[in-house]
Amino acid sequence: MPAENIVYFGDTARLPYGSKSPATVTTFVRQIIGYLAPLQPKHVVLACNTATALSLQAIRGEFPHLSISGVIEPGARAAVEAAGSKEQPVIGVIATEATVRSRAYERAIHRRRTQARLLQRPTPLLVPMIEEGRAHDDPLVRLALQQYLLPLVQRGIDVLVLGCTHYPLLADPIARVLGSRVRVIDSAAHCAEDVARRLRTAGLPRGDTEFHGSIRCFVTDDSPRFEQLASRFMGFAVARPTHVTPEELFAQSPGINPVRRAV
Amino acid sequence: MPAENIVYFGDTARLPYGSKSPATVTTFVRQIIGYLAPLQPKHVVLACNTATALSLQAIRGEFPHLSISGVIEPGARAAVEAAGSKEQPVIGVIATEATVRSRAYERAIHRRRTQARLLQRPTPLLVPMIEEGRAHDDPLVRLALQQYLLPLVQRGIDVLVLGCTHYPLLADPIARVLGSRVRVIDSAAHCAEDVARRLRTAGLPRGDTEFHGSIRCFVTDDSPRFEQLASRFMGFAVARPTHVTPEELFAQSPGINPVRRAV
Repeated sequence: MPAENIVYFGDTARLPYGSKSPATVTTFVRQIIGYLAPLQPKHVVLACNTATALSLQAIRGEFPHLSISGVIEPGARAAVEAAGSKEQPVIGVIATEATVRSRAYERAIHRRRTQARLLQRPTPLLVPMIEEGRAHDDPLVRLALQQYLLPLVQRGIDVLVLGCTHYPLLADPIARVLGSRVRVIDSAAHCAEDVARRLRTAGLPRGDTEFHGSIRCFVTDDSPRFEQLASRFMGFAVARPTHVTPEELFAQSPGINPVRRAV
Repeated sequence: MPAENIVYFGDTARLPYGSKSPATVTTFVRQIIGYLAPLQPKHVVLACNTATALSLQAIRGEFPHLSISGVIEPGARAAVEAAGSKEQPVIGVIATEATVRSRAYERAIHRRRTQARLLQRPTPLLVPMIEEGRAHDDPLVRLALQQYLLPLVQRGIDVLVLGCTHYPLLADPIARVLGSRVRVIDSAAHCAEDVARRLRTAGLPRGDTEFHGSIRCFVTDDSPRFEQLASRFMGFAVARPTHVTPEELFAQSPGINPVRRAV
């Protein structure tokens, strides 16, 4: 959707979410959506598996006037499609500790294919390895992927869901460890297709123009780290982000009770 | 100091600090000290290398009535002592990205030994490896330590400072990679000795009793993860922590302007 104008909010002061509780992650997401709501977005994506797993349901209830989706349903749908007609497909999911603990992928997959067998594995070293900028042929990357993935291969997975938006950056070395028999699902790509479909259904896509849409970034920590990582992840330089501290987020979310917790 | 009563505050909702900016870390530390100040602690330790490197100086200025120390000065002092009489000792420091970038160890060591050569190395995979509970003989731990440390050994370090309070949990495999020629400094142990000395100098140590002091824990994220890790790190079960959300921290730090930044 190159014509769309995108606002990206990265909670860099409080990341990662993947080791934290549903209540904490939901509070953080609530503050961010409350901050973005005045921009009247036509759609909001929780473009993070942990945030989706832990808070999507609560956040949808709290912002009923906003259209909000996540990354897990599109990934689960694609995994079931990739499993094809096999009666009892074995589907592996690698994700953060919090996403695994939430069982969100399990619910989303079993709703579509009750007979699927799910093997979930938290893989907490992959995000720091990716952010460290390690090469795909780094022996440490290869060894970590072997340790995490070979037990899943040995137990016969047909499909592996990359259940964290960082993981597609390791798609090549992951495919090498898995071999050609296992289908790999990039939940980020399927999420983008899901958003495009939602916009079309609602008659909301921005008409084709010769001009590309804009990307505006907000971050909660003002550090050169974001621009470095964003440029590496996106493949092009990203404009300097706007800095909003967690305290400003909190102060500018009127009507949101700080002490009550949703989950 | 087994007789002392200890209050431990773990900012589990916003950790890790090691990849974040001085302004953000200083804001978080300020909120925590503001929250603890009414307990009238006889001493406060920033028991985290990143928090010490990025915020100790500012925080001391903002809380002049509190006695506050960190972990870096004790570690730097011990490193210089361990280097002995060598004219140009080579001192290695492994730490978080933020601690390395701050050059806090460099300043603290050069103040004592202007001729020392410093080799600093961010080692961002070690904390997640330790928190994942990997065994000391795990091939991934060994390979990561070889990648991080052998270049320092080859450049002739005499001393290695473990510049993050997690790293002493890997002291054995670190010593195996370094060999017997390199002295290893555990900044956590030297920090405890430094606090004991400060209390004695101020005439404040709690008299010997037959009873052990208490440990009371506060955390910002209410998750079973803290108790699991704390028990593993401490070697005994830790009482259930009190949960204080980041929003409560912020709301209960009156007079602290959320938007101004100290650094």
